[in-house]
Amino acid sequence: MANLVVVGSICLDSVDTPYGKVEDVLGGSSLYFSTAASYFAPIRIVGVVGTDFPQSELDFLKNRKADVSGIDVLPGKTFRYGCKYHENMNIRDSLFTDLNVFADFDPKLPADYQDSDYVFLANIQPDLQLNVLNQVKAPKFVAMDTMNFWISGMLPELKETLKHVDLLVINDQEVLELSGETHLEEGAKAVLNMGPKALIIKKGQYGATLYTENGYFWAPPFPVSLVKDPTGAGDAFAGGFMGYLAMTDDLSEANMRRAILFGTALASFTIEDFSVYPIKALTASQINARFNKLLDIIHCEAGKML
Amino acid sequence: MANLVVVGSICLDSVDTPYGKVEDVLGGSSLYFSTAASYFAPIRIVGVVGTDFPQSELDFLKNRKADVSGIDVLPGKTFRYGCKYHENMNIRDSLFTDLNVFADFDPKLPADYQDSDYVFLANIQPDLQLNVLNQVKAPKFVAMDTMNFWISGMLPELKETLKHVDLLVINDQEVLELSGETHLEEGAKAVLNMGPKALIIKKGQYGATLYTENGYFWAPPFPVSLVKDPTGAGDAFAGGFMGYLAMTDDLSEANMRRAILFGTALASFTIEDFSVYPIKALTASQINARFNKLLDIIHCEAGKML
Repeated sequence: MANLVVVGSICLDSVDTPYGKVEDVLGGSSLYFSTAASYFAPIRIVGVVGTDFPQSELDFLKNRKADVSGIDVLPGKTFRYGCKYHENMNIRDSLFTDLNVFADFDPKLPADYQDSDYVFLANIQPDLQLNVLNQVKAPKFVAMDTMNFWISGMLPELKETLKHVDLLVINDQEVLELSGETHLEEGAKAVLNMGPKALIIKKGQYGATLYTENGYFWAPPFPVSLVKDPTGAGDAFAGGFMGYLAMTDDLSEANMRRAILFGTALASFTIEDFSVYPIKALTASQINARFNKLLDIIHCEAGKML
Repeated sequence: MANLVVVGSICLDSVDTPYGKVEDVLGGSSLYFSTAASYFAPIRIVGVVGTDFPQSELDFLKNRKADVSGIDVLPGKTFRYGCKYHENMNIRDSLFTDLNVFADFDPKLPADYQDSDYVFLANIQPDLQLNVLNQVKAPKFVAMDTMNFWISGMLPELKETLKHVDLLVINDQEVLELSGETHLEEGAKAVLNMGPKALIIKKGQYGATLYTENGYFWAPPFPVSLVKDPTGAGDAFAGGFMGYLAMTDDLSEANMRRAILFGTALASFTIEDFSVYPIKALTASQINARFNKLLDIIHCEAGKML
């Protein structure tokens, strides 16, 4: 089993959906990612919080091999984000974004994180992603996320970072924006020419696709009966994916396909309730059951041909 | 091998897309369905055209086991439909709908169609669908399509017809309208309670799903590099699906899954050019190749578990 490091945001979220409302709950890409990944492999977390951060709320992570020594506590307040989802929960209005101590985030890896095998650069400023990556001595596999804000505002830096990663995980709209293409298949090809050897396109309620040089895989979503809060689904997906890769330490495409289904399973639990609550205390058999169900959902055997 | 009958519209379409424009070309649910199905099983077509219909354009169908004796030629003009697709081809404006001889369509099955095994009731008025079905002596398997126009305008008749079919094939929006649910999974359950033993939900660029009492399958779309005209994709999908079922005469869920991939293959050819042109003269190996590619796109083997 390999180990895994993540750098990203740690946030106290206030979220309002048609199914309820929460305030100052655990959020941020790094926490969603780590929580999901922690079931699979030793996860090391790099981040920053303020002195107001409720440290004891991370106990569940520490109990599951997670190393939180890379989370700096700085004088000031923790990053806070507020949003409200519409009845159609694909639409979200941001209500406030108070960066606080996160505004000057300049991630430094603790010395004992520098031998990390698997690296996930969650959605932060692209030059900071590269700074982090440069602090890892000999990474086996590096994946990153990004968003429209960096695509439109820091494209040269983003393109530079892209040259140094193995995998990019973004959504379909971001593929079009990053590539400048209007057609997703063409966009995917263009992104693969920017550096990454593999691309995962997240499609929300329609699943996710994996593009590699010679392969193409379509992962279905796991059918959940009620989505209460979609926040963090993409980061939990990435956490399940990277966690499984690190656990198995197998970078074959066949194993990446399995990893995507484990990521899908973690994302599906995440959206069933607010914050990281639904993925704080899962059992291996709960997770494996969703993986097996996903395998069944796409199972088709060759039969009589035309 | 079983045989197959379809009832639906035969139309001369005028279509304008960002990739070109055609006038008075072969169209209508029945022609798209039949063309796709004709590769797999003897297809019998029920429909109506006017004296202006270019009969010789059906030669390609006759050459491939299709029986067109159920297409009535009535005095007057053939049904004509015109539409224009936006740059985003998910949006289509209807320009004109001249029903002509199709306005009084009251389908009668020729005597030698009444022993049909597989029946597809394409998207026409639901009471006419039932009339056709009542003329088939001992159908083995009946599937139907419908649309928002009948859901909002003839719901009681539609619900009556639904009681007599084995499978309904509609898109995701229609599932919500028909069921009155806001969530697709709940909507699918509600539809299965209306009569059909199975439901296929077409998701356009996101594939299709199959719901049965105990099963759930997600079929991916086939990745085409350029969509020139999406018209008829759903009917070609249904044609490939029903054609494969009739050819194999196997109604197991495992075989239905294969049939959906064959339907997906036919739909993917259809959208690569206007009208039925791209599916008029395919080879078995072209079709099988797309089926095999689809199998590969969803292939995932069980591996190391958590």
